[in-house]
Amino acid sequence: MATIRLSSGHQMPQVGFGLWKVPNDVCAEVVYNAIKTGYRLLDGACDYGNEVECGQGVARAIKEGIVKREELFIVSKLWNSFHDGDRVEPIVKKQLADWGVDYFDLYLIHFPVATEYVDPSVRYPPGWFYEGDEIRPSKATIQETWTAMESLVEKGLSKSIGVSNFQAQLLYDLLRYAKIRPATLQVEHHPYLVQQELLNLAKKEGIAVTAYSTFGPASFKEFNMAHATELTQLTDDETIKAIAAKYNKQPSQVLLRWATQRGLAIIPKSTSPARMKENIESSNFDLSEEDIATISSFDRGLRFNQPTNYFPSEMLWIFG
Amino acid sequence: MATIRLSSGHQMPQVGFGLWKVPNDVCAEVVYNAIKTGYRLLDGACDYGNEVECGQGVARAIKEGIVKREELFIVSKLWNSFHDGDRVEPIVKKQLADWGVDYFDLYLIHFPVATEYVDPSVRYPPGWFYEGDEIRPSKATIQETWTAMESLVEKGLSKSIGVSNFQAQLLYDLLRYAKIRPATLQVEHHPYLVQQELLNLAKKEGIAVTAYSTFGPASFKEFNMAHATELTQLTDDETIKAIAAKYNKQPSQVLLRWATQRGLAIIPKSTSPARMKENIESSNFDLSEEDIATISSFDRGLRFNQPTNYFPSEMLWIFG
Repeated sequence: MATIRLSSGHQMPQVGFGLWKVPNDVCAEVVYNAIKTGYRLLDGACDYGNEVECGQGVARAIKEGIVKREELFIVSKLWNSFHDGDRVEPIVKKQLADWGVDYFDLYLIHFPVATEYVDPSVRYPPGWFYEGDEIRPSKATIQETWTAMESLVEKGLSKSIGVSNFQAQLLYDLLRYAKIRPATLQVEHHPYLVQQELLNLAKKEGIAVTAYSTFGPASFKEFNMAHATELTQLTDDETIKAIAAKYNKQPSQVLLRWATQRGLAIIPKSTSPARMKENIESSNFDLSEEDIATISSFDRGLRFNQPTNYFPSEMLWIFG
Repeated sequence: MATIRLSSGHQMPQVGFGLWKVPNDVCAEVVYNAIKTGYRLLDGACDYGNEVECGQGVARAIKEGIVKREELFIVSKLWNSFHDGDRVEPIVKKQLADWGVDYFDLYLIHFPVATEYVDPSVRYPPGWFYEGDEIRPSKATIQETWTAMESLVEKGLSKSIGVSNFQAQLLYDLLRYAKIRPATLQVEHHPYLVQQELLNLAKKEGIAVTAYSTFGPASFKEFNMAHATELTQLTDDETIKAIAAKYNKQPSQVLLRWATQRGLAIIPKSTSPARMKENIESSNFDLSEEDIATISSFDRGLRFNQPTNYFPSEMLWIFG
């Protein structure tokens, strides 16, 4: 399977399995099935609220001899409320315990947003709010958080570190003070949000990019976002369907291949073993340059994963 | 004239005079005329390359008794190559000497981009490049630069300090470590780039916003940007013209009033005394809420003032 060499020296599988919105009651089974299907990268996070179950799926696969720990590439993420420098290591240790492993392969700052600490015994995962609908900022700077992230590498708690949902200006600033550069940047990326300039920047700076929500609005329909429900689903789009038919592939496979041919890592999620297989096999064909350009021309700078899209608040617009 | 109260406690005129692209050979005269026309806020910058001439215009107006220094609100900006902490105070002192004044009313970080120091005796203003087409980053973080900006206030070299061209993520981070909060944020703003969410953020955080390029593409035609030359100029747009006719005003006055009624400060430039007068008188009428909404609906997230729009480089995309 194709891998991407990170600036940390480690290899990351280009196709992984995303764990956002995998329901707790099926999560262990889904993770087990994903590993059995051939996935080696598992993309989790504190905020997904399912790391214990992810760990159960991993343990079963290891126990049955399907995979060894060192063959897996486990990704997790630091939640907003643990940005204070002294909160980072304790929460990583808790997350590692939840997964039942003693290191992550990659650990990311989930959002460039620092909120006040919530004790895990009070509420876990803590979510965006301190209480009710109050977002209470913490004093932690991104530099303070990044310094704590760097110490995770020194202590062997994560092999590589990176960021998610960072835009260009904050990345440039981070690169000024980073002793360990971010190995990856994980961002929303689909034909409606192509982000070519940000990808150029990352490439120039040697930062691998992982695309999330490769199917675009499909990931956000359930949140009743008007623009996600009213837009044509990309997998139903006639142009995408025609390209898929030409290669005798599924529209979803075309969308995934478009991303990987652009050099990105992908982390599609599915609870269906058949779909899992389709997704991981999406790299077994090549789109023509012309078809890639056609799909890229869908771009309309449309971002779905923005806090104000989930809750009506003017308090937290982080992509302005 | 309407003023905006800044978080620093100082009052800033809501309508000012912009000095970007005012040619050196007429600049002293233009500044003198602007003051005579009634402008009290002058918005300059190292990078505009005309601060000596601006100062000559100010000196003449003061000498002729048209205005006193304390009645003026002089704004200048820190260029990218002076972001290193120890470079800030010396360059501000040079800029003050160029203007012939002993304090600025407001001093802004021009762009959140730190490039290597260029000695003013070698090249001034230094521009984006170190040499040829090489952009050479400096190690200065925004925090280092902001700390130096804060010391300007403590030393009386600027009454207020702020930022320009910052996006939400970097602003949030700055607010974490700022001992003196930014009094203003200056950003591109016109009907094609409404930036409502960023304005909401600024309002909530008590940061006054100054709009530049209120006429949109008109400011950028001369750079041969395709999207600036191909778009209908806003002052030629039929909808804008119809609104202007209704109020018996110029289309340019409608665009300026749209911005000030949204609570923004504006800094239009003109070398023509008649136009200067039109611009400063743009606040003498009120657009209806409906007309404001109509103009806001022009929004298409279209940004012109982005370094890659001036020079073909993938090295410096700062708004991704």
